[in-house]
Amino acid sequence: MNLAAKLAQFDEHWAPRTVAEFNGHDVMVVKVKGEFVWHHHDDTDDLFLVLSGRITIRMREGDVDLGAGELFVVPVGVEHQPYAPEEAELLLIEPSGTANTGDRATAARRVVI
Amino acid sequence: MNLAAKLAQFDEHWAPRTVAEFNGHDVMVVKVKGEFVWHHHDDTDDLFLVLSGRITIRMREGDVDLGAGELFVVPVGVEHQPYAPEEAELLLIEPSGTANTGDRATAARRVVI
Repeated sequence: MNLAAKLAQFDEHWAPRTVAEFNGHDVMVVKVKGEFVWHHHDDTDDLFLVLSGRITIRMREGDVDLGAGELFVVPVGVEHQPYAPEEAELLLIEPSGTANTGDRATAARRVVI
Repeated sequence: MNLAAKLAQFDEHWAPRTVAEFNGHDVMVVKVKGEFVWHHHDDTDDLFLVLSGRITIRMREGDVDLGAGELFVVPVGVEHQPYAPEEAELLLIEPSGTANTGDRATAARRVVI
């Protein structure tokens, strides 16, 4: 499965698409631009791999800047705010059913492509 | 954490290095060339993301060819043999403690970089 081909199927920002399943997790691709909400996950680490562009993961303890080919895991419970000055493309892995905002009320729904 | 920089730290083939931990899994980078052993995992899916080069994942039901930016999950229990005609670089994710050969007796030891 080709990640770039999956990313070519949509344009929305902050709307992850599930492209594979792995040990109860969703492997997702997402396009991002601008600021996401500050949030944390009570039950899971949050894996970010940048496929194109650049993002900053803002955290209370300090920011992490990531470019293409760079990976970062936000530990469970740590508040963070992804920010992309220009459009960036990411691979994300989270347990299936994880709310992307950390809150089911505001989360994107799961979309498989 | 930059995956290419981690891969530049070693030359051995089929010797994964753990570069991050995620929900009880090791996120690993590995250089591969030639044939690995046929094996399966009784307890876990096996995630392959090609970072450079090309690999074939041979399976009894048919082969899957993967180039850079392509991802495949071998389902739990499915026998497979990774094969790379030329050197390729991969991202792998497996539960911490998983034997890369499916057998602790022959597995690479865990190395964190």
